[in-house]
Amino acid sequence: MSEFDTGLPSVRQIQKYIKDKQKVVIQLATAETITGQVLWQDSQCLCLSDESNQSLLIWRHALIYIKPTS
Amino acid sequence: MSEFDTGLPSVRQIQKYIKDKQKVVIQLATAETITGQVLWQDSQCLCLSDESNQSLLIWRHALIYIKPTS
Amino acid sequence: MSEFDTGLPSVRQIQKYIKDKQKVVIQLATAETITGQVLWQDSQCLCLSDESNQSLLIWRHALIYIKPTS
Amino acid sequence: MSEFDTGLPSVRQIQKYIKDKQKVVIQLATAETITGQVLWQDSQCLCLSDESNQSLLIWRHALIYIKPTS
Amino acid sequence: MSEFDTGLPSVRQIQKYIKDKQKVVIQLATAETITGQVLWQDSQCLCLSDESNQSLLIWRHALIYIKPTS
Amino acid sequence: MSEFDTGLPSVRQIQKYIKDKQKVVIQLATAETITGQVLWQDSQCLCLSDESNQSLLIWRHALIYIKPTS
Repeated sequence: MSEFDTGLPSVRQIQKYIKDKQKVVIQLATAETITGQVLWQDSQCLCLSDESNQSLLIWRHALIYIKPTS
Repeated sequence: MSEFDTGLPSVRQIQKYIKDKQKVVIQLATAETITGQVLWQDSQCLCLSDESNQSLLIWRHALIYIKPTS
Repeated sequence: MSEFDTGLPSVRQIQKYIKDKQKVVIQLATAETITGQVLWQDSQCLCLSDESNQSLLIWRHALIYIKPTS
Repeated sequence: MSEFDTGLPSVRQIQKYIKDKQKVVIQLATAETITGQVLWQDSQCLCLSDESNQSLLIWRHALIYIKPTS
Repeated sequence: MSEFDTGLPSVRQIQKYIKDKQKVVIQLATAETITGQVLWQDSQCLCLSDESNQSLLIWRHALIYIKPTS
Repeated sequence: MSEFDTGLPSVRQIQKYIKDKQKVVIQLATAETITGQVLWQDSQCLCLSDESNQSLLIWRHALIYIKPTS
């Protein structure tokens, strides 16, 4: 996790969600899902604005999947 | 996880699923299973097209197993 | 996790919570949430003062998300 | 996990199960157990043929224990 | 986890609990909590003397939080 | 986890359990506990002989704690 390769397809996919202000669903290791927009990412975390416009820092190790809302 | 060795048997097995458009079942750390086709993989994630044709980015650390549908 | 880059946006976000004495909610890998103020962080842990003014050392690998209280 | 030392006793124990076509029980992080034969291992995964002769790729980080069936 | 930096604030906090024979509560990844005194720490484990004076080796990756008993 | 330092107090504690044929209780990440004797350890696994004299390879990442039976 320590290196953060911005050329990775998965990193670029999330970067695209950020640019497109794509609404996404994220499943967490606790099995909870959160809906919102990814604001930015770094090597440790994603920052998500949830449906009540709160900013969550979510640790990457806690991520199960991310998908666009249908 | 940082290095991604495309010569590894497990990486090549998944690459074969991608090429063959093999329908697979993936079990996640949340114990949930998802059915779909793997579209691509990188060192951090698998990208899966699920049964409603949605693209999910699934983090490798969240993977339990993958198997072809029977 | 071994290197701790104080220039990372996520590390600086938490540093801002510390400076602002921001009340935060932290979700843990056990799905429990804890409310309090972050006192300091290092590469392994966050130190949180909870609502009864107890100091908890929380390991980073146990963090799911952190958000300001609404 | 990145290096895979084929001289490790645990790696050699699994290699012996492969050679002996030993029927084994594997417990996964989801608490599920699977019975089958290990076909091969690499640094990321074990490949298991389960009781319906399906091939599962199981990620090492998802393994709890392996034991021969009694 | 491989390097163990005894200068880290979190490591020194635990070292202080050891020196002060502070009674602590530790939450584990299984959501269980254990009460006792930390006897020593190394890069992999904490050794805890629990309330029936049994010595437990607890792996660091299994730690959620530690706090003094109130 | 990749390096295995046989001088670590926690590794030596387990080595002592092996030498003394100490009966131990191990809690796993699945919250299950197993009773038995540790036969050997390497950097990835502990090998345990359980109460029905079966040999289990338990992955270190799945270990929560180990303690002598009381």
